[in-house]
Amino acid sequence: MIIVKVGGGKSINWDYLARDLSSINEKIIIVHGANAWMKDISKKLGFTERMITSPSGHISRYTDSKTMEILTMVYCGLVNKKIVSCLQKHGINAVGLSGADGKLWLGRKKEAILSKVGSKTKIITDSLTGKVESVNVELINMLLNKNYTPVVTIPAITADGDLINVDNDRAVSVMAKDLKVKILVFLFEAVGLLENPDDPTSKIDRIKKDNLEKYISLSEGRMKKKLLGVKEAFAEGVQTVYFGDGRIKKPVSSALNGAGTVIN
Amino acid sequence: MIIVKVGGGKSINWDYLARDLSSINEKIIIVHGANAWMKDISKKLGFTERMITSPSGHISRYTDSKTMEILTMVYCGLVNKKIVSCLQKHGINAVGLSGADGKLWLGRKKEAILSKVGSKTKIITDSLTGKVESVNVELINMLLNKNYTPVVTIPAITADGDLINVDNDRAVSVMAKDLKVKILVFLFEAVGLLENPDDPTSKIDRIKKDNLEKYISLSEGRMKKKLLGVKEAFAEGVQTVYFGDGRIKKPVSSALNGAGTVIN
Repeated sequence: MIIVKVGGGKSINWDYLARDLSSINEKIIIVHGANAWMKDISKKLGFTERMITSPSGHISRYTDSKTMEILTMVYCGLVNKKIVSCLQKHGINAVGLSGADGKLWLGRKKEAILSKVGSKTKIITDSLTGKVESVNVELINMLLNKNYTPVVTIPAITADGDLINVDNDRAVSVMAKDLKVKILVFLFEAVGLLENPDDPTSKIDRIKKDNLEKYISLSEGRMKKKLLGVKEAFAEGVQTVYFGDGRIKKPVSSALNGAGTVIN
Repeated sequence: MIIVKVGGGKSINWDYLARDLSSINEKIIIVHGANAWMKDISKKLGFTERMITSPSGHISRYTDSKTMEILTMVYCGLVNKKIVSCLQKHGINAVGLSGADGKLWLGRKKEAILSKVGSKTKIITDSLTGKVESVNVELINMLLNKNYTPVVTIPAITADGDLINVDNDRAVSVMAKDLKVKILVFLFEAVGLLENPDDPTSKIDRIKKDNLEKYISLSEGRMKKKLLGVKEAFAEGVQTVYFGDGRIKKPVSSALNGAGTVIN
């Protein structure tokens, strides 16, 4: 079983990805983002996304109920169903699910978030964000055992039934733990992890998992979150994580062959 | 097993509905619309919905690829996940699905649609509309057998993986056939079928299924479609169809007790 996490950029080539997946003889779970479309649709709706910077420097989306509405539209609707249609065109019997469906991603809401604005720290209490704590293993296995390919995205849900925004990358590590997955593939719009984010020729071919901390401290933004997710995944028993380019032909096979960055 | 089809109006009270469903000891499949939200979001996105009138007077949504994008956002995203969250709050383990997921609603695209514009008839060939022909019984039964409640909405999908817009009400009759469902409940924003659509006191308490044709010829718009779906459902072996008010407490129980319109 492999979890393939695919970033939410517009240059990800889902057609190549679907063709590649249809040739891989493994149970596959897809987790996807939709960030570029979220920006697009928010803008078209005249809605300004707000970001929060935590005191430790993490940037996340401020998710009020209006943001949650747009998030479900874009992630569970527009992008999830585009992906399902694309996979079905390549003979993969995809089933799109959010983390809320069947309490697939059960989590806890953060009671308060600290947000740094200039030199001041504000407390935000109305943000619908949280963390996934467990995965509905029965639902995923039931689908996989009948040859369906789950295509999963945010939001997650609390025990009380509230939709919460969570980090897709970190949700992947909880999935890996509960489903005992050993191999993760992260595809995004770069050739792999770059020493210098602005220089595509600075790809790092391999990282020893014991050195991960160093790369976490050096990285920023989304990549930092991704690496934090990877670190959690190793702590949960994952053996190898592959970073690869989601824009090329055979993106998953290539990543598994070491064309991107291999972490183990 | 009961299929409860819920209309896409804004005064449907999902909280009442969920509370009612949690007390009914039956396997339930929910099919829902989202028409009022579709109008809203289309408007907010500056998109003008276009309707097609067929030569026989049926009105349907002209569904080009842009409409399909908004449709997936609104039906599969915004509204489906609102419903899933609401049901989960009442202890119902809802799983939201579109007809595309797992080819749940497998259909055929119409090759051409005739559209009446004034006295002329135009042929439209780029509309992504069609008809559901079969239902993925395995997927639905797998979920029901594990006590999940499927919450299903458009779009459907073709064998080639194309998303198609179909009529939810008529898809219900195909579900009834393939799943051998005998009881259907349709909830909407009225007390039942009205003799005069403008007079809420003109509710028809009972219709004999053999007289359905008369009511079809007298009705218009969405109600006409609903009755056509009902007629198809009887032809497929359904025994009783209940129309009821989706705005009241205990909407399903009340409809099953004959508070709306009973057709059999």
